[in-house]
Amino acid sequence: MTTNLQLLLVGRREVIEADLKNITHQAEQITIVDAREVIGMNEKARVALDTKHDASILVAMRTVASGDADALVSAGSTGALVLAAAQELPRIPGIDRAALAAVYPTRKRDSSSDPFALILDVGASVRVRSQDLLFFAYMGSAYARSISKVARPTVGLLNMGSEENKGDAALRQAHAWMRDDPRLHFVGNVEGNDIPTGGADVIVCEGYVGNVALKMAEGVSEVFKSLGKQAFRQSLLSRLGLLLLSRALRRLKGITDYREYGGAPLLGFRAPVIKAHGRSGEVAIANAIKVAAKAVRDGVCSEIERAVADFTAAKTDP
Amino acid sequence: MTTNLQLLLVGRREVIEADLKNITHQAEQITIVDAREVIGMNEKARVALDTKHDASILVAMRTVASGDADALVSAGSTGALVLAAAQELPRIPGIDRAALAAVYPTRKRDSSSDPFALILDVGASVRVRSQDLLFFAYMGSAYARSISKVARPTVGLLNMGSEENKGDAALRQAHAWMRDDPRLHFVGNVEGNDIPTGGADVIVCEGYVGNVALKMAEGVSEVFKSLGKQAFRQSLLSRLGLLLLSRALRRLKGITDYREYGGAPLLGFRAPVIKAHGRSGEVAIANAIKVAAKAVRDGVCSEIERAVADFTAAKTDP
Repeated sequence: MTTNLQLLLVGRREVIEADLKNITHQAEQITIVDAREVIGMNEKARVALDTKHDASILVAMRTVASGDADALVSAGSTGALVLAAAQELPRIPGIDRAALAAVYPTRKRDSSSDPFALILDVGASVRVRSQDLLFFAYMGSAYARSISKVARPTVGLLNMGSEENKGDAALRQAHAWMRDDPRLHFVGNVEGNDIPTGGADVIVCEGYVGNVALKMAEGVSEVFKSLGKQAFRQSLLSRLGLLLLSRALRRLKGITDYREYGGAPLLGFRAPVIKAHGRSGEVAIANAIKVAAKAVRDGVCSEIERAVADFTAAKTDP
Repeated sequence: MTTNLQLLLVGRREVIEADLKNITHQAEQITIVDAREVIGMNEKARVALDTKHDASILVAMRTVASGDADALVSAGSTGALVLAAAQELPRIPGIDRAALAAVYPTRKRDSSSDPFALILDVGASVRVRSQDLLFFAYMGSAYARSISKVARPTVGLLNMGSEENKGDAALRQAHAWMRDDPRLHFVGNVEGNDIPTGGADVIVCEGYVGNVALKMAEGVSEVFKSLGKQAFRQSLLSRLGLLLLSRALRRLKGITDYREYGGAPLLGFRAPVIKAHGRSGEVAIANAIKVAAKAVRDGVCSEIERAVADFTAAKTDP
């Protein structure tokens, strides 16, 4: 694959240099940015960031903040990524809350030919206000349009019923704003079951709810896998059955393991930040880099910025 | 099965009488309470309750409120049940929010020999305060102890991470109260994946989050079923595989279809209210009645009342 991307690799210079020696690469497209410290996957993110000022994730964020890089890709600790971005990257004016999205495949839907959908936020925030939910909808729409090539991505608000009066006052206000917003293709409230069945291209919610929903799906998948393993030990017929099961399980795993799909974006900053899974191989990392480059090329962050500015201007106008 | 229960059947007298003619029954244990109106499953609950003052669910609630009945079982509209209870039944003193629980089977756990667990609230409330969460824990513990015969049911607080500082201020306060409460066997914060995998006997959360989590699991199960159906059409081997699949699917369905397990309790009132599934057959209805009788016999509501009174007294003491 040829590309004209310029890659900045941030980390311990000697380690990166040693790795590059063993890999065919275009040296003129690669720059090493030295960072002496590393934050491990099991470290407490807040403590690690406060003590390791030269951690690679912080140095990489500063590279983006200074304009030396246009986007960031990381396969490291999600907690450290979210906190480092909050600390080092300028947010889009008017946006108070960043959102971590999860990309997941859905059952094929009528509304679009794209089987992938996006749920945000899944954990960068805990609780949010109506306006944050509206801005999450802008973020998700702009990203889905760029990455999935769906011209008018459908947006659903995660609620506890489809009627527009469901939820609390904040959810009803968010519903009204999204419904009346010409920038959004709003399909109304959606419920938990609409996430895996593909009720919308973009599903919007606060971090607490998104996080629980995603992990609930992981848990159901985990229980199913352990049932499959039990069955495997039971009989020959069951083992034959697993030829089928394995295919269905792969599909079910895909629903929960969003991390395999080119990375999950952290949105709300002036540059795209892509979180690749910690176990990403070379294909997954290459996909994450492609996704980051697409988001830059399509001006995803500028589009979000314009939508937020338009809404804010209309709101303050008499 | 013989029983000394006295049953009040609430509904159109002539319909109930006609049905009883075709059934062997102990006439001396059955009383018909006439109610002329019916609320359908697809009616808007609020509108129906406001216009049908003689609806069977309202008449049945009044029978409990007046002391003529000790508990209520309904297989009708959940929305109407929750609203009718709020309107007609006295709440336990100190309790502001009722909670609708879901009962579901989990993977066998170490903490108890009972494979069933309880999540509450799944939709009677939207948002709640820390104290409501604590009271949900009292409700769930008392109910699980009575119905599941687990002497010290484990209680988990549904959060977005297991560390005790996770979530917002309300979740942290609820965590601190539950941790320090000798009436509860609190195991700390649990995450979405802990629901199906059986992280606790009782999982406590606000209605919005519980509702989304439960429906997310239903959605994953639905996707899985449709994958199974596709596979069935594909090949003979797949069909053989479905002999296994069907068993695993039944188990997975059980995880989401909590309604098959003797009904789901609506807690927070001075009498037990049991919601049976709308498609309940005779076994399911009999189970729901048994569960209601057990809850009365074991004084579940009095136990919740004592715990709330103790907490309130300790809180207001200097």
